[in-house]
Amino acid sequence: MLLGELCAEFAGTMVLILFGCGVVAQVVAGGDLTKPPGALGAHDSIAWAWGLGVTFGVYVAARLSGAHINPAVTLSLAAFKGFPWSKVLPYTVAQTVGAFAGALLVRWNYTEALGHADPGHTFKTQFVFSTLPGNGVLPVSEWGALRDQIIGTAILVLLIFAVTDVLNSAPKANLGPFVIGLIVVAIGMAWGADAGYAINPARDFGPRLASYLTGYRSAWRDQYGDLYFWVPIVGPLVGGLVGAALYQALISRFLPTAETEVGRTPTPE
Amino acid sequence: MLLGELCAEFAGTMVLILFGCGVVAQVVAGGDLTKPPGALGAHDSIAWAWGLGVTFGVYVAARLSGAHINPAVTLSLAAFKGFPWSKVLPYTVAQTVGAFAGALLVRWNYTEALGHADPGHTFKTQFVFSTLPGNGVLPVSEWGALRDQIIGTAILVLLIFAVTDVLNSAPKANLGPFVIGLIVVAIGMAWGADAGYAINPARDFGPRLASYLTGYRSAWRDQYGDLYFWVPIVGPLVGGLVGAALYQALISRFLPTAETEVGRTPTPE
Amino acid sequence: MLLGELCAEFAGTMVLILFGCGVVAQVVAGGDLTKPPGALGAHDSIAWAWGLGVTFGVYVAARLSGAHINPAVTLSLAAFKGFPWSKVLPYTVAQTVGAFAGALLVRWNYTEALGHADPGHTFKTQFVFSTLPGNGVLPVSEWGALRDQIIGTAILVLLIFAVTDVLNSAPKANLGPFVIGLIVVAIGMAWGADAGYAINPARDFGPRLASYLTGYRSAWRDQYGDLYFWVPIVGPLVGGLVGAALYQALISRFLPTAETEVGRTPTPE
Amino acid sequence: MLLGELCAEFAGTMVLILFGCGVVAQVVAGGDLTKPPGALGAHDSIAWAWGLGVTFGVYVAARLSGAHINPAVTLSLAAFKGFPWSKVLPYTVAQTVGAFAGALLVRWNYTEALGHADPGHTFKTQFVFSTLPGNGVLPVSEWGALRDQIIGTAILVLLIFAVTDVLNSAPKANLGPFVIGLIVVAIGMAWGADAGYAINPARDFGPRLASYLTGYRSAWRDQYGDLYFWVPIVGPLVGGLVGAALYQALISRFLPTAETEVGRTPTPE
Repeated sequence: MLLGELCAEFAGTMVLILFGCGVVAQVVAGGDLTKPPGALGAHDSIAWAWGLGVTFGVYVAARLSGAHINPAVTLSLAAFKGFPWSKVLPYTVAQTVGAFAGALLVRWNYTEALGHADPGHTFKTQFVFSTLPGNGVLPVSEWGALRDQIIGTAILVLLIFAVTDVLNSAPKANLGPFVIGLIVVAIGMAWGADAGYAINPARDFGPRLASYLTGYRSAWRDQYGDLYFWVPIVGPLVGGLVGAALYQALISRFLPTAETEVGRTPTPE
Repeated sequence: MLLGELCAEFAGTMVLILFGCGVVAQVVAGGDLTKPPGALGAHDSIAWAWGLGVTFGVYVAARLSGAHINPAVTLSLAAFKGFPWSKVLPYTVAQTVGAFAGALLVRWNYTEALGHADPGHTFKTQFVFSTLPGNGVLPVSEWGALRDQIIGTAILVLLIFAVTDVLNSAPKANLGPFVIGLIVVAIGMAWGADAGYAINPARDFGPRLASYLTGYRSAWRDQYGDLYFWVPIVGPLVGGLVGAALYQALISRFLPTAETEVGRTPTPE
Repeated sequence: MLLGELCAEFAGTMVLILFGCGVVAQVVAGGDLTKPPGALGAHDSIAWAWGLGVTFGVYVAARLSGAHINPAVTLSLAAFKGFPWSKVLPYTVAQTVGAFAGALLVRWNYTEALGHADPGHTFKTQFVFSTLPGNGVLPVSEWGALRDQIIGTAILVLLIFAVTDVLNSAPKANLGPFVIGLIVVAIGMAWGADAGYAINPARDFGPRLASYLTGYRSAWRDQYGDLYFWVPIVGPLVGGLVGAALYQALISRFLPTAETEVGRTPTPE
Repeated sequence: MLLGELCAEFAGTMVLILFGCGVVAQVVAGGDLTKPPGALGAHDSIAWAWGLGVTFGVYVAARLSGAHINPAVTLSLAAFKGFPWSKVLPYTVAQTVGAFAGALLVRWNYTEALGHADPGHTFKTQFVFSTLPGNGVLPVSEWGALRDQIIGTAILVLLIFAVTDVLNSAPKANLGPFVIGLIVVAIGMAWGADAGYAINPARDFGPRLASYLTGYRSAWRDQYGDLYFWVPIVGPLVGGLVGAALYQALISRFLPTAETEVGRTPTPE
């Protein structure tokens, strides 16, 4: 039932972007990120809504496709967990199209608000859709952003592998999607300054394309004028593999191979 | 036991409004939304308390009525899940009366605070009870608000269908109400700029009526002087059906029909 | 094993106050509530830490005493759920002594900080320990505060009865304490403007006494010079009974008497 | 399998620090803690990300080592719960090396941002990595900081013992790590003003060493010029024992010794 899987990846990633790009649009529309918050959100609501978007995207897609909703996750699962290589490309396309569709809906719904806040559709609101080195503000180079994307996605995938590993202490009662969302909340709080925590090629490329097609002519470049769109694609793909390898090396190979009841933590042994 | 169901819908929706209108009243009373926060809350506390109000309203009503606490949910369940059409109107009335009662309690408790902040009972505090296009501030038209309400409620109902579908990965251990509340937290953060995320006809109409009867003469109109109260009724009813249909089309029809143990996500297959 | 129960109520209420009074002290010490936040917390951290304090207090005491940690809850359980009347007074004393002890620890730890922020130990920091009408700022009368405490505690106890009722949809997996904490988070956000959401006689009286004995000479009076300490005692006791009665009338009497598997919400029937 | 346990403690503590030091670096890089927030986080995001870092660190290490990720926890478990004394030192070393590694990654990733915010690598950004009395701002002495660390860690360990005690009401469904993270969220909100809530010798010493080796020459001293690094080591070790003893005295000795089904709280008996 590949069609069902691809529909699920499409829908799950669309949901992620509906909240992710949506919250940034709302914050931009309701005030100004550089001023004190108070209107319609600020950094903290951005971190929470991106994370909750992941939670809901995973709930939507979980049963049908496993809810990767991220090509870096799909690639890591193929490399380390036996996910079929033949599905990597179809999943990636479905995820990217889902992100593209979600971004178009955000773009449409916030037409007036974005036009009001940034009539020329410049870098000022471009970051609603796609990421920039140092969020367009901090003095971070393209290399610095690439390094950040590798580390940030390594953290993401290491933790996804940890909290979904039934041989470890994976949440039960179908609450894994909630905990996975919290991972992204925390990455947004702690690993978002250098490159806007794309940590997901589909999340960045799909909305970037949507914004380009709807008036953001600078979408492919960063504030220095350099082509940038490849950084949040390459960085996460590499970083995901690094994180998965670290989980294998530090944790997975020591775990008992039979699924046994996991003791409550922290306990001795 | 229709009486029990209607009492539950009444109580659940009242609880929702006790927190929802309550938090906006507190923020308005404790400071000024247009100034930096710090007194008694701001955007983020509004998003959280609305969402948690949903969580608690659902916990109150869950066993007796299924805790729709929203006519758009009731209508969608009738259209797609076999909920009896004969109960749609009674449920809607009970929800609206519950919202009305909750709003009167908020109005009563914050009499002094609202009178202090806005002696004339104008648009300045009208949004404690009911919604406005662009929250009365952003340049959003009535049409823009209708579009927003359709999309926002589509997201809400799509996700409610997802996280309550036992054939998908619905939360267990009776934690569904918590996750449903988080949906509304995130919608408040990402889909609240264009029309104040009513996404629930009872939530908007009941408090609107309560405010009108207690001194808010402008309650039926928006900041442009147009009749507006119908938008957060029609938009959510349409949007709920759209969201339910999307869930059916993208996810539900692919799910296995027998309830099987759901694999932890994300996993291959 | 009454001794164990009383130790548990003592410890649970102490933990509640260690976080509740602690967070307000930290916010006062780290900045000024009337200025923009940014130093060491503000309204939102106060709401979250009070609620999480409830969560942890309940986890500590749950097994031994049922974790009332609030005389208004104890009284309501005696009146409506068969809790032995003979234990009401001992529980209340243990709760109040626990709150007193917790407040002394906060007072001790933040000696320098409170002395720095308010050398005269006035109303400026008195609200670290006990509540005032309108938080000492809004024009709320003693009567308004009493009304607020009745309504606020009615909401609290109605919801506690709902989320702990195994005939309804009570959270499982021992996550009830987390959800109960969220109730207090939301009450702090939506029902905290008129009287500082004491909603617990022990929470208010114990720390009030502790502050009086350590230099706050105005502890028993409000900003108008009237004796006030009785309001957050009488209001919650009355309000708790109201909330419990409402739950019985609107929900409990309709519930099936045998514990049956609760359907996931919202579902038809 | 001591190697696996040590790898787990290394990885879990590294994860904790990746989020903990990461969030402070992001806040410092994205704005100025003494100014209104709005850029890339502030107090609340710091409290949440530290706590979520604990959650994820525990999820990573739970199955292999019990996820102490804190020498104060390891020591308390040895003293009160039969954890082998022979493993206390290896665990402590693994935790400290993990914290050191995590801090180096944060230091590397935020090189440009920290250099931009504080070219001289002074106290202004030193608190990204290690703690200071009164966070370098409030008039708290070394003794006051020691007192604070003892109390704060006593609260932490008392609560960890409570929420992991299967004879009490420990969370099930492998959600203990989430609740343990919330403990640290709340401690950051309520017990962070006097000494920056190290409450973990490895968390403080590892990053302190990392910062010293990468340019922070003042790392071992506080703003008064006194050697300070020992306070967040000694205080937590003592405080942990105090908290564990309190849990034994107030709760544990009254609990039934057979694991029985825990009633939902609060209920009579």
